[in-house]
Amino acid sequence: MGTNHGQRQLHLGAFIFGVGHHIAAWRYPLTDTGGLLKLDFYKRFAQTAERGKFDLVFIEDIPVLPEPLNRAVQYTLPVRAEPLTLLSALASVTKKIGLVGTVSTTYSEPFHVARKFASLDHLSGGRAGWNAVTTSMENTAKNFGRDHHLDHSLRYERAKEFVDVVTALWDSWEEGALVIDKATGQFADPDKVHEINHVGEHFSVRGPLNVHRSKQGRPVVVQAGSSTTGQAFAAQTAEVVFTAWQTLEEAQNFYTSLKSQLPAYGRSPDELKILPGVLPFIGATEEEAKAKEAEFQNLVLPAVGLGMVQNILRVDLSGYPLDGPLPELPDATEINGGKSRYQLLLDMARREQLTIRQLIHRVTGARGHRTIAGTPVQIADQLEEWFVNKACDGFNIMPPYLPGGLDEFVDLVIPELQRRGLFRSEYTGTTLRDHLGLAEPANRFAQRSATSVH
Amino acid sequence: MGTNHGQRQLHLGAFIFGVGHHIAAWRYPLTDTGGLLKLDFYKRFAQTAERGKFDLVFIEDIPVLPEPLNRAVQYTLPVRAEPLTLLSALASVTKKIGLVGTVSTTYSEPFHVARKFASLDHLSGGRAGWNAVTTSMENTAKNFGRDHHLDHSLRYERAKEFVDVVTALWDSWEEGALVIDKATGQFADPDKVHEINHVGEHFSVRGPLNVHRSKQGRPVVVQAGSSTTGQAFAAQTAEVVFTAWQTLEEAQNFYTSLKSQLPAYGRSPDELKILPGVLPFIGATEEEAKAKEAEFQNLVLPAVGLGMVQNILRVDLSGYPLDGPLPELPDATEINGGKSRYQLLLDMARREQLTIRQLIHRVTGARGHRTIAGTPVQIADQLEEWFVNKACDGFNIMPPYLPGGLDEFVDLVIPELQRRGLFRSEYTGTTLRDHLGLAEPANRFAQRSATSVH
Ligand SMILES: Cc1cc2nc3c(=O)[nH]c(=O)nc-3n(C[C@H](O)[C@H](O)[C@H](O)COP(=O)(O)O)c2cc1C
Ligand SMILES: Cc1cc2nc3c(=O)[nH]c(=O)nc-3n(C[C@H](O)[C@H](O)[C@H](O)COP(=O)(O)O)c2cc1C
Repeated sequence: MGTNHGQRQLHLGAFIFGVGHHIAAWRYPLTDTGGLLKLDFYKRFAQTAERGKFDLVFIEDIPVLPEPLNRAVQYTLPVRAEPLTLLSALASVTKKIGLVGTVSTTYSEPFHVARKFASLDHLSGGRAGWNAVTTSMENTAKNFGRDHHLDHSLRYERAKEFVDVVTALWDSWEEGALVIDKATGQFADPDKVHEINHVGEHFSVRGPLNVHRSKQGRPVVVQAGSSTTGQAFAAQTAEVVFTAWQTLEEAQNFYTSLKSQLPAYGRSPDELKILPGVLPFIGATEEEAKAKEAEFQNLVLPAVGLGMVQNILRVDLSGYPLDGPLPELPDATEINGGKSRYQLLLDMARREQLTIRQLIHRVTGARGHRTIAGTPVQIADQLEEWFVNKACDGFNIMPPYLPGGLDEFVDLVIPELQRRGLFRSEYTGTTLRDHLGLAEPANRFAQRSATSVH
Repeated sequence: MGTNHGQRQLHLGAFIFGVGHHIAAWRYPLTDTGGLLKLDFYKRFAQTAERGKFDLVFIEDIPVLPEPLNRAVQYTLPVRAEPLTLLSALASVTKKIGLVGTVSTTYSEPFHVARKFASLDHLSGGRAGWNAVTTSMENTAKNFGRDHHLDHSLRYERAKEFVDVVTALWDSWEEGALVIDKATGQFADPDKVHEINHVGEHFSVRGPLNVHRSKQGRPVVVQAGSSTTGQAFAAQTAEVVFTAWQTLEEAQNFYTSLKSQLPAYGRSPDELKILPGVLPFIGATEEEAKAKEAEFQNLVLPAVGLGMVQNILRVDLSGYPLDGPLPELPDATEINGGKSRYQLLLDMARREQLTIRQLIHRVTGARGHRTIAGTPVQIADQLEEWFVNKACDGFNIMPPYLPGGLDEFVDLVIPELQRRGLFRSEYTGTTLRDHLGLAEPANRFAQRSATSVH
């Protein structure tokens, strides 16, 4: 403790989710529930995270309401801003912090996605990142003209091709392609603007993009699936991985496993940063923090908690006693939604012999992510433990409620991390790649002309 | 002149297009060409338009580069911000002005479009509008996995269904559906949240949307196709129509024709505002204004001008003398791109017996829209003439270059329009509907329950 661990520094994301991550956040007296979908609410969030020198703000996404609809709208937060719309609005009111948003590869078109993130990357001065997810919620299909959600493996095949097309479009304008010579009337150099002419299994896209290369080269690619297929996808394409683990050992195993897969794709382990989620309950004493956590749990209506667990486990638990164990459930291989979260819940329930009620409490807080209730020093200790023991490269911080939950973290935990030399006291660069220590990926088209200078 | 025409007031849009509407704008010495895709450039535009009390800023869109690619990138402005990304960024730095963006109905999904504009509508406090276009540029298909652009009539059929689905999704949350009762834990009233269960020729969408109803009810629907099919579509669905006309008579005919089609759909003519485009060259004297226009024309490289005309007329003109007339061209019915703009160019060339070179000059300036070169008083006279003679409800102002072209209009022409009592001196409302004098459309779901109170 207290020592400076040299060059290795934590990377922190500030994870936006409704009016806070805890499912009952909106009922908590100090939560600004009226802030939902109001610009000032998100502006305050992003500016606070920037004051805390976070690497990025992150917004998840699911383009469908949870099931069953009539129940979901009554208890949970069924309304949310579309991520790109929100991040663009935040680009204008922040200066340095990265802006990472989720867009599904299962329900979008690569040209649109490439273009929107490239536009955001320009307007924000090189701060954009794309969390490419395959979307786990099956009923999303019904909002997009399909009867069924694609199979898990097909979703990842499509995702891989999708990311290939998007990054090719981002490369379609080489560095220096814009000439802008008012005198001669030459706007761009056609030799540095490329059709991508992609023809694949899922997409045919000619290109080029109608946005040129940005200050950080191209947006950062983020990924958040942790299944075996998800890891292989991440090892090939992702520069940041968000994930969810309960124990140091699980997180270390994941960290080692994923990083070890990079060299096979010609990548160094440093080219991918792994950030597990953490939901902090912060108190002046440990008792106060635990009491706060309990207060949130008491605000969860039983039907809401059960519904969340049922949605992840895809099982009707209504016939089982809340204070008894989970029934036998199928193997993760038989699951077509999010496999890794399914497995995580099963493992956790078995390992800790949790009753259904106890499992509900875990899920309604952090949805399977790690929860830490303690003093700022205790929280810093636990973050440091994972960080120095190679369980992660940083964390995705999930404030249980807003705006207070982020304020507390920035005012109390960040200074503690800074004192320990684990976290920056000032931004040293201006782009998201600068913050994350990620190099600009080589442009696939520029490599072809051996004589061009970079 | 100088009299107050009672209640009827002009509606004005500030039309963003590259670094100015004139195709050679980027070569003009006073143009901030480096501002392209930089937030500060658009921020200045939007804030200047808001200072001028414009109803709205408007951004067009084509998700493809002009053809042929290698030529287009050399001379024209082939890069542009994706409209929604840009408008959201502008939402944070403006307070009152409406934000209208273009999204194609031919290359998008209704759920995404409904959601993005609904999100923007919330974040901007009720200022969003959607320009629903069918996209005229045929090669767009190649960026979206299709070999061919849909036929003109099929594009409009799809567009009609698309708008129906989007507005149904906007209605899927009734007014007052959000209850947010912290004490009981009731978030929303499930009886006021509706699946739309749309199953049609082009789309199947279940809904509901995951964004609730906004302050202005729902975003304003704008349309910009002027062909016969385009007019029928507008009469059914649009609340604002952008259009392009050269003469008072043409514009009056269009105005009368379109407005007269509304009652057949149970709508009053007032429920749709018609705003033709105008490109103003402003000078202290008429000579100065005309000299400015000529200066811009001299900056157009011949190949660029010819290319633009060829793209609209879909003909290779390279074998014809520039100072001779257009060759015989097919009837608009045989054209699968933008029909009305095609017809407008043919009519203009015939009526004024223009040579190819003269036609080029018309197109490179305002792309077929009206150009007025004159003093602020002369420009106000011409705007007033169209307005009082029922050729329009206002205008979409197209500054030839930026930022100066908008500054001049706001500083010199707006005060003249205000002096004449034709234009507001202050916003009287806060939403785009307020500015346009448009009522909130009834919610289709609310009407079903006769007992519900509104
Ligand atoms: C921090 C974090 C954020 C995530 N955000 C999303 C999201 O926004 N949308 C989504 O559909 N899935 C999200 N996921 C889930 C995964 O991306 C993935 O869709 C799902 O888990 C299925 O992949 P898997 O089977 O490989 O785990 C997130 C996961 C994590 C750890
Ligand atoms: C002011 C104005 C703006 C327009 N903006 C767009 C645009 O952004 N994208 C587009 O594809 N077409 C745009 N159009 C063209 C029409 O919307 C339409 O796509 C095309 O003209 C074909 O329709 P039509 O055959 O009914 O005229 C615009 C037209 C006008 C008058």
